[in-house]
Amino acid sequence: MEIPSHYLERAVGEFAQLPGIGRKTAMRLVLHLLKWERKDVDAFAESLHELAANVRYCHICHNVCDDEECQICASPRRDHTIVCVVESVQDVMAIEATQQYNGVYHVLGGIISPMDGIGPQDLEIESLVKRVCAGGIAEVILALSPTMEGDTTSFYIFRKLAEAPEVAITTLARGVAQNDQLHYTDELTLGRSIMDRKPFKS
Amino acid sequence: MEIPSHYLERAVGEFAQLPGIGRKTAMRLVLHLLKWERKDVDAFAESLHELAANVRYCHICHNVCDDEECQICASPRRDHTIVCVVESVQDVMAIEATQQYNGVYHVLGGIISPMDGIGPQDLEIESLVKRVCAGGIAEVILALSPTMEGDTTSFYIFRKLAEAPEVAITTLARGVAQNDQLHYTDELTLGRSIMDRKPFKS
Repeated sequence: MEIPSHYLERAVGEFAQLPGIGRKTAMRLVLHLLKWERKDVDAFAESLHELAANVRYCHICHNVCDDEECQICASPRRDHTIVCVVESVQDVMAIEATQQYNGVYHVLGGIISPMDGIGPQDLEIESLVKRVCAGGIAEVILALSPTMEGDTTSFYIFRKLAEAPEVAITTLARGVAQNDQLHYTDELTLGRSIMDRKPFKS
Repeated sequence: MEIPSHYLERAVGEFAQLPGIGRKTAMRLVLHLLKWERKDVDAFAESLHELAANVRYCHICHNVCDDEECQICASPRRDHTIVCVVESVQDVMAIEATQQYNGVYHVLGGIISPMDGIGPQDLEIESLVKRVCAGGIAEVILALSPTMEGDTTSFYIFRKLAEAPEVAITTLARGVAQNDQLHYTDELTLGRSIMDRKPFKS
């Protein structure tokens, strides 16, 4: 498909580099942008310039932030003795949205995935081990996705943290999800939720 | 979901204004951009600035182009007596990709859709009528989508062009699509393809 404008072509090429966006979708998005006023498209572009120029990562937990240290690590109201290990910034936001956690985080920046060529050295695991071994931490929660890669990464970190034996290492509860239909739940999850059954509380 | 960085927040807000992109997808795209090198993100932003600043519409057919006149309207090799009326720039590209058409185009910039508040005055219909009435055109092909809105628009244009009676007005053939399974074809299409049957050519 030949694109009749060099500028259109270039913008489509840029959008098509984003994950999950092919050339047809990119074309649709760019043609939509053409309907905007010029100042709005410029504001869009400016937001990307500013993002690239100004966004930073917290030097403690590697979460995205605007300063040297993120708001969570800087907060005196958070419990700094509990560290929740997550894969990504999105996971931090998802856990924060639950309003059930008052500790701090450690963002790995991915999970071990040999298929994608991602090994432990590509992730913030070394910095996690250092952080835990430096002391002052009572519990590390491994809150990675319940997948093969997530479990592999959890196990790797678990072994690495054996050097700090006074720290409790926990992981997220697994079981049937709220509002799931029981007969649609997969066998592994259902089996595990029976094995891990808990006293009924009214 | 609270976003931990002002710059991230702003970029996500911009992406989420694009059609079909919600805040979660926008977040995924922006976090992906953060993995790029800064110069690449700047190039992305620059492509949007340039798009907004430089893209133009052909003064004859209203297709997107880089100059006053698009390459198709400017080409002496095209047949300027046949005008194919389409909804959008994407449709021009789709027809060009078939390599079966050597005439020129007229891009309406949409179709009549009362549900979306789009009437004939919002489209390039007046300019089409003027163009056809100015003479030198033998055929107008109405190549709009075979939907209720497309048919309404075609009928509206057909009536408008009654002022230019020496011009042949045609429309795309409708029938079963290449490689479709016959028993999955909808009744209207199949019925019409029987009514409009053609002599078999080997």
